[in-house]
Amino acid sequence: MSAADLPSLLGAVEPVDARAREDARRRHERLAKPPGSLGRLEPLAAQLAGIARASPPPVPAAPAAVIAAADHGVHARGVTPWPQAVTAIMAEQIAAGTASAGAIARSVGAAVWLLDVGVIGELPDSPHRVDARVRPGAGDWTVAAAMTRDEATAAILAGAGLAERLADDGADLLVHGEMGLANTTPAAAILAVATGRAPADVVGPGSGGDADTVARKRDVVAAGLARHEPDADDPVGVLAAVGGLEHAALVGVTLAAAGRRLPVVLDGVSSLAAAMLACALAPQAADYLIAGHRSLEPGASIALDTLGAAPLLELGMWLGEGSGALLAVPLVSAAARVLGDVATLDQLGIGGE
Amino acid sequence: MSAADLPSLLGAVEPVDARAREDARRRHERLAKPPGSLGRLEPLAAQLAGIARASPPPVPAAPAAVIAAADHGVHARGVTPWPQAVTAIMAEQIAAGTASAGAIARSVGAAVWLLDVGVIGELPDSPHRVDARVRPGAGDWTVAAAMTRDEATAAILAGAGLAERLADDGADLLVHGEMGLANTTPAAAILAVATGRAPADVVGPGSGGDADTVARKRDVVAAGLARHEPDADDPVGVLAAVGGLEHAALVGVTLAAAGRRLPVVLDGVSSLAAAMLACALAPQAADYLIAGHRSLEPGASIALDTLGAAPLLELGMWLGEGSGALLAVPLVSAAARVLGDVATLDQLGIGGE
Repeated sequence: MSAADLPSLLGAVEPVDARAREDARRRHERLAKPPGSLGRLEPLAAQLAGIARASPPPVPAAPAAVIAAADHGVHARGVTPWPQAVTAIMAEQIAAGTASAGAIARSVGAAVWLLDVGVIGELPDSPHRVDARVRPGAGDWTVAAAMTRDEATAAILAGAGLAERLADDGADLLVHGEMGLANTTPAAAILAVATGRAPADVVGPGSGGDADTVARKRDVVAAGLARHEPDADDPVGVLAAVGGLEHAALVGVTLAAAGRRLPVVLDGVSSLAAAMLACALAPQAADYLIAGHRSLEPGASIALDTLGAAPLLELGMWLGEGSGALLAVPLVSAAARVLGDVATLDQLGIGGE
Repeated sequence: MSAADLPSLLGAVEPVDARAREDARRRHERLAKPPGSLGRLEPLAAQLAGIARASPPPVPAAPAAVIAAADHGVHARGVTPWPQAVTAIMAEQIAAGTASAGAIARSVGAAVWLLDVGVIGELPDSPHRVDARVRPGAGDWTVAAAMTRDEATAAILAGAGLAERLADDGADLLVHGEMGLANTTPAAAILAVATGRAPADVVGPGSGGDADTVARKRDVVAAGLARHEPDADDPVGVLAAVGGLEHAALVGVTLAAAGRRLPVVLDGVSSLAAAMLACALAPQAADYLIAGHRSLEPGASIALDTLGAAPLLELGMWLGEGSGALLAVPLVSAAARVLGDVATLDQLGIGGE
């Protein structure tokens, strides 16, 4: 199930095809509509062409979301009002299709896979749950490392392995998501390292934290950074020091998507933090990323700015579970379909201005 | 095909169900996710419940777009760089599914109907073209009225008639769109009357007009308003003076949707101008409107502000053809589905804070 090893995962990430991207851009100028009038769909179609090495690009027909789930030792530090047991409960709901991720996925025609890389507690068997537990939750990184480097690598390879299996089975668009109580805290720590911003900038309320919760999160992030001094140029080390197993898994999903030449739609802060680490490991992966939405969590906007990625949706969401990314899937499909299906001005004998 | 008459169309528009809307709002607070975390999807679900008189509301399964098409005498005034013949060419493409509307509609599972209320020129028969021509294009309202009041009413009833037929055939979500070269000029004239804003505020480039084109449009709108002095309290009179046949048809689609208790997703300036006139005729219709996107045409933002409607999408689009409204359809479906499908906290034994 796991991908082979990290070097081969990184080695498979190649540049997108600049010629196909440019062909798509030119084709958009000749479609039967004013050039530019479809706004963001037009560069998105060009990106898809570059990724697929074909213009027009194929229309994504089998999107699949990997929702990586794990627990967190920093939960004990009061960084969320919800009990840790909610991770297992919601992971079960996600696998069963009774969480928001499932409802949205059914609306957009996507499959949802729950990848358990470190949930604490038993989960029932489910056809859409993949058990790849690396350890029972990340450690409390205010007192020790979140995990070992080998564990971080194992979680990366677990995410990559599921993504590769889904690609083998026909998935043609991958979607990021996560579930893990307290996981906006490690997301903030990763983003602070990856963007160079202060903890106060990247820490937010997460799933309904009040001002006291936010203050504790800030202190926890600051303590983790002070204790471990993670190095932005060592993404595996960042994960080992202050990351989460689900963040590591989403690094793997991102790398495998790029390696398989598939677009990957990003969700909120945890997803974006993982994408930034993936790009630190393999810079070419950046061209495969599609920002699904702008989460209200403040770290999301900082990550989007740093990635230079404009999100497709801005709906004031902050749930996670891949919810915002899943909602963006029809926009991606529509962008590809317009480029392939719409008649050209030449075909219609219209010259424009 | 046409609806019976305007008074019965208006009489069928009833208030939405405030109790179902409130039930939906409360249900969202008990779903297995932090309250508010799905952002705009939550009030949207409540709106759908109010419209359907049921919480959770049914999930829209058969969306249908009415793309109203007609020509315009003001085309002769140099208000667009594209020839008038493009209306007929693109109307044919829309009916055939080879325009942007069709490509996007296929991505979101919507049917597209081309309603010809006044295209100049022959159009081939097509299963998705409805011929309801009222007159060969609106008149040049810098020299005479755009149409008679009877013609405006006939176009309203044509739009309503198609919407009612689609509802009879099972459509459960209606979508607005238009095609008509030069039609952002009458849209701007309608918006100037309906919002009380100056022509300079509501006139934009339309489909690629340059600064000179915009200046001519402004003068044409100002001339029309000066000549006819349309009264915002007489929406049929506004259409007759400075409107377009497709704007009138979309007034009818809006009223019929509300009368049939169906949500209607709005597109750009022409769609919004029609929605404003529909609300002037039947104020309760406002609760059935869903703003699909924010067109870059400046009148769109003014209309959205006046309607108090926040658009679901902001993708920098300005095509028309219902393209932005169609793209928003999956968001509407997802909003309904989340409310119905997601487990409640009580079911899972989670108390939250």
